[in-house]
Amino acid sequence: MIRVAVIGCGYWGPNLVRNFSALPNTEIRVICDRDEARAREVGHRFPAARLETDAYAAIAADDVDAVAVATPVQYHYPLARAALESGKHVLVEKPLTDSVKTARVLVDLAEERGLVLQVDHTFVYSGAVKKLKSIVDSGEMGDLLYVDCVRINLGLFQSDVNVIWDLAPHDVSIVLHLIDRPPVWVSAIGCAHYGKLESQAYVTIKFDHSLIAHLHVNWLAPVKIRSTLIGGSKRMLVYDDLEPSEKVRVYDKGVTLNEPDLRHEALVDYRLGDMFAPYIEKSEPLATVCATFVEAIQTGGRPMTDGIHGLEVVRILEAAQESIHKQGEQISLGALG
Amino acid sequence: MIRVAVIGCGYWGPNLVRNFSALPNTEIRVICDRDEARAREVGHRFPAARLETDAYAAIAADDVDAVAVATPVQYHYPLARAALESGKHVLVEKPLTDSVKTARVLVDLAEERGLVLQVDHTFVYSGAVKKLKSIVDSGEMGDLLYVDCVRINLGLFQSDVNVIWDLAPHDVSIVLHLIDRPPVWVSAIGCAHYGKLESQAYVTIKFDHSLIAHLHVNWLAPVKIRSTLIGGSKRMLVYDDLEPSEKVRVYDKGVTLNEPDLRHEALVDYRLGDMFAPYIEKSEPLATVCATFVEAIQTGGRPMTDGIHGLEVVRILEAAQESIHKQGEQISLGALG
Amino acid sequence: MIRVAVIGCGYWGPNLVRNFSALPNTEIRVICDRDEARAREVGHRFPAARLETDAYAAIAADDVDAVAVATPVQYHYPLARAALESGKHVLVEKPLTDSVKTARVLVDLAEERGLVLQVDHTFVYSGAVKKLKSIVDSGEMGDLLYVDCVRINLGLFQSDVNVIWDLAPHDVSIVLHLIDRPPVWVSAIGCAHYGKLESQAYVTIKFDHSLIAHLHVNWLAPVKIRSTLIGGSKRMLVYDDLEPSEKVRVYDKGVTLNEPDLRHEALVDYRLGDMFAPYIEKSEPLATVCATFVEAIQTGGRPMTDGIHGLEVVRILEAAQESIHKQGEQISLGALG
Amino acid sequence: MIRVAVIGCGYWGPNLVRNFSALPNTEIRVICDRDEARAREVGHRFPAARLETDAYAAIAADDVDAVAVATPVQYHYPLARAALESGKHVLVEKPLTDSVKTARVLVDLAEERGLVLQVDHTFVYSGAVKKLKSIVDSGEMGDLLYVDCVRINLGLFQSDVNVIWDLAPHDVSIVLHLIDRPPVWVSAIGCAHYGKLESQAYVTIKFDHSLIAHLHVNWLAPVKIRSTLIGGSKRMLVYDDLEPSEKVRVYDKGVTLNEPDLRHEALVDYRLGDMFAPYIEKSEPLATVCATFVEAIQTGGRPMTDGIHGLEVVRILEAAQESIHKQGEQISLGALG
Repeated sequence: MIRVAVIGCGYWGPNLVRNFSALPNTEIRVICDRDEARAREVGHRFPAARLETDAYAAIAADDVDAVAVATPVQYHYPLARAALESGKHVLVEKPLTDSVKTARVLVDLAEERGLVLQVDHTFVYSGAVKKLKSIVDSGEMGDLLYVDCVRINLGLFQSDVNVIWDLAPHDVSIVLHLIDRPPVWVSAIGCAHYGKLESQAYVTIKFDHSLIAHLHVNWLAPVKIRSTLIGGSKRMLVYDDLEPSEKVRVYDKGVTLNEPDLRHEALVDYRLGDMFAPYIEKSEPLATVCATFVEAIQTGGRPMTDGIHGLEVVRILEAAQESIHKQGEQISLGALG
Repeated sequence: MIRVAVIGCGYWGPNLVRNFSALPNTEIRVICDRDEARAREVGHRFPAARLETDAYAAIAADDVDAVAVATPVQYHYPLARAALESGKHVLVEKPLTDSVKTARVLVDLAEERGLVLQVDHTFVYSGAVKKLKSIVDSGEMGDLLYVDCVRINLGLFQSDVNVIWDLAPHDVSIVLHLIDRPPVWVSAIGCAHYGKLESQAYVTIKFDHSLIAHLHVNWLAPVKIRSTLIGGSKRMLVYDDLEPSEKVRVYDKGVTLNEPDLRHEALVDYRLGDMFAPYIEKSEPLATVCATFVEAIQTGGRPMTDGIHGLEVVRILEAAQESIHKQGEQISLGALG
Repeated sequence: MIRVAVIGCGYWGPNLVRNFSALPNTEIRVICDRDEARAREVGHRFPAARLETDAYAAIAADDVDAVAVATPVQYHYPLARAALESGKHVLVEKPLTDSVKTARVLVDLAEERGLVLQVDHTFVYSGAVKKLKSIVDSGEMGDLLYVDCVRINLGLFQSDVNVIWDLAPHDVSIVLHLIDRPPVWVSAIGCAHYGKLESQAYVTIKFDHSLIAHLHVNWLAPVKIRSTLIGGSKRMLVYDDLEPSEKVRVYDKGVTLNEPDLRHEALVDYRLGDMFAPYIEKSEPLATVCATFVEAIQTGGRPMTDGIHGLEVVRILEAAQESIHKQGEQISLGALG
Repeated sequence: MIRVAVIGCGYWGPNLVRNFSALPNTEIRVICDRDEARAREVGHRFPAARLETDAYAAIAADDVDAVAVATPVQYHYPLARAALESGKHVLVEKPLTDSVKTARVLVDLAEERGLVLQVDHTFVYSGAVKKLKSIVDSGEMGDLLYVDCVRINLGLFQSDVNVIWDLAPHDVSIVLHLIDRPPVWVSAIGCAHYGKLESQAYVTIKFDHSLIAHLHVNWLAPVKIRSTLIGGSKRMLVYDDLEPSEKVRVYDKGVTLNEPDLRHEALVDYRLGDMFAPYIEKSEPLATVCATFVEAIQTGGRPMTDGIHGLEVVRILEAAQESIHKQGEQISLGALG
């Protein structure tokens, strides 16, 4: 039996409670929020769970094996650190922390202690992204040429983080999950239309072998768009998360370079073909996140979005932030030490 | 009576011939292509026009008042220059030329000789962009925050120019037309997926007062998109050129900064309101291009897309190209001397 | 304080419980389902409510003022009748009953006893249909010409009712709510693709003054469509319930009959104009249904979808059924006696 | 060499001239319109063709082998009849004639004389409908359950025919082409919103084995829709002619009847699967119409839309008209004598 403490009963915490409590061999032992009324509101449906207002007490409790941190991002690091130091496995909301330095401390701590550290990059566990991953991995797309992500809407202005730390973790996480190459550099342009925090940004991530990913994140758009284009030399993909049924469409379209030593006009052949929208399984991604976490604890396996993945995401967010301050300069990433 | 010579009978030339010949007080005097068969094919419906294979002879002819240049871009400069030097008014296909240096020579020549120099940035004359312009100019959008343009599809690879010089002139021209402020710097990232010429690029144009325009142009996309988002502090716009009937949608949506001295959470108020799609007149934009050119000759007026406008577009394309070569560096534009 | 008993804890009952319990001056006194486990599952969040498995006991209880019936349709009549006979106000799921005869008994009973009888035709209380109603009532559409409703998808086959009794009540109710004229006749065509119950049907309702409404309901469609077109002589409407934000679009389009005594070609003028999508309020329609019911009890007012409205809907459903059995014959409705 | 006379230079005639003149072994010998200016306008690009204003002279000419009739519908019969009586092969615009009686005379005449009689039901020759036909014929859809066609827009009011004779020929022709069973009866409801001619109609066609096709045609709709749904027991199709690239989508969706002797709830299983949009060839359908006509003349073959097909379409249109006048009565078709 894995006994879980959930810290934070804001928007996401109750979903964690619900999903963990539905798992076999798992129980919610503690529900914690510094606002007692909130904790009680979540807790009354789970009478077996203890309510807490002191996160560190919840973390330290002897009857807790694992801690799920669903607080504002500035508390991720101290709480996750305390949990790992108490020998508890940790699931943290995205992003892992708000700096590479702190993220690395957590990764190292988890490594040393042999504990599971997982980041809740929920999209990676969705049916659509799983399907994308299997298509990309199959090689049927040919060489990957680019990934273009647009995640815009009239969004909630956050008081503590800018649009990059709020929206880009989703796309950065998906892109890193799909692309099996190290990122090389990041550049970004951001606009702070109101106040000091950027509410719109364009982020470019360069990968090995001339592959780039480009993100547009925006809190100030008239329409909601959640779209990812993936160009391949043989096939191309559109992933539209707002489509109710055909979220992933695979286009049998492309160009082929056919006679490399003739003059340029002859180089390129177009191919237009069928389109295919595979059936996407409809299960709740967060259920898979929680099940993966519990399974990793039980089996010693590594979740898809482990600490290293979470650190890599933070590294790119931080580099994007730095690039914005340096007029779009390309920020080299080097190897993930 | 304005007597016109049309040089180049490729894709666009025949449209120029057809539109000029439909205007009152205008006649097609010369139809020219170095491939005689092509000239003949276009000319047989306009028996009053003389066919030519020598562009310079066509330009020099005494019975020609104005020259329309619809050749590949590398010939724009020599032909337009010859025409201006012969005292002829000139309409050139977009982009004006392939370098700032040559574009400036043409602008100066036209100025000195008192001749009309117009660039055929056709979209600026479309019903949709005219509507955009009138909405932006009315002030109803509040402060402009950003312009985001996407122009992608599985396009024709060009042998002579990259995707920036092929697709971006449309959006750069529209953006300059809509925004009444000088551009400050340009940065760009490009990918040459096949061969040496970029087939995909992201271009950022910074304007005075923290307004940016961002372009995505791509010859290698699975789907065709022609979309422009314009964010304003009071209203926001979507211009989708592929929509058959509602090309322009105005959203009465926005955020307002209401209590600047309180803590950040209180700063922003959301407003969701009606959407409005104004009726867009359906006339052929090229007919207006041609009529505008003839009218400018007759009245001495200035077309919306005169030589200065065309030079500004080229300046931005050239800066984007330079930025790509310099790893996305911001290229300052300075005042348009 | 209005004390409510909710009968039936299937799909819809829990929503009624939740919405009634959120109202001021209202309390859930009894939660009833013949399956005790179900009742308990709903009830554990509302500890003040008593659980019951005997509907008639729940209805008869002295501490109950009003009964909400959310059972399969065949139980609507006996339960609603028992409730009215016990002097309780009644809210019934759609459709009111499964026959005109029984529906009329309920209407008469409610009338005699001075009790509120309301049918939960939820759509009528939605922001979108309220907007439709205000547009139609304003007269801005000119003369109403037709209403065309499509409600299709790969739906759940019902074991007890056909597609007309399952899906058409929504559209019939909306149409009757919008159109202030008596229906004259009904004709229908139905197909029973599997088993004996129709899984697809087309229903035509003729109203006074040559206005018709036409419905397509279908459990066997490859795509989900929820669309209503309303043609008017001055304006036309599209109501698409699947649109996330612009559910109602008003087209300033139409034709005008301008010179009645000339030959036919000259009679008709086309008008193409702006399109307008009014902002639609996003509140939960069922909350308004419940609040309306309680208010009607307190003030003696009449809900929009009272027993008469519910009876009129049943009359049309029954006539449609009869028409199917008589090869599409037009079934006259006569005055609602 | 097949020598063709084209009668009628309105909207469609010039397209026939252009397509016939592009065929090998075919020449346009006569271009005819009673308005000489129109004939001249079309003819000046085809200097080898003779211009005529008298249709009967054009038809009778010795140097003409085949006649294409593109006049208003009331002239189809006399002109086609004269042509067949002169021993000329005939291609007629849709619909074949305006009555079953006259259509039958033409069919019989063509039969007796061994001449080709083809109706220009252009859609049948389009890439999309060819693809539909091959999918339906392959049997992969299972049993056909229904066809639902919507063809609506703010259309041109015709002075001579109602919306059934104007728009429905397209869908009736497509439906008859796809379904290999005899139609059994037709019923229809029509509305004459302006003047005496119906501007909106719903038509139901019953085929053998409980398959129905249903059409909605409307000149007074706010939006343009060209959609056909085809339900099958194994797969379902959507054909949307306004989609620029994915006109045909095949859904691997359906229900299966699995345990016929149990109670109804157990009968039906749902299947949700992939969606597939086959590549559709983009050639001009009219080019295939013309090539088919010429080939039928040369080889003695039968075009897909021969006189019998055209007669069957007219039979259904006439029955629909009769049903409208008889309050939607089902009009039996009997065998096509």
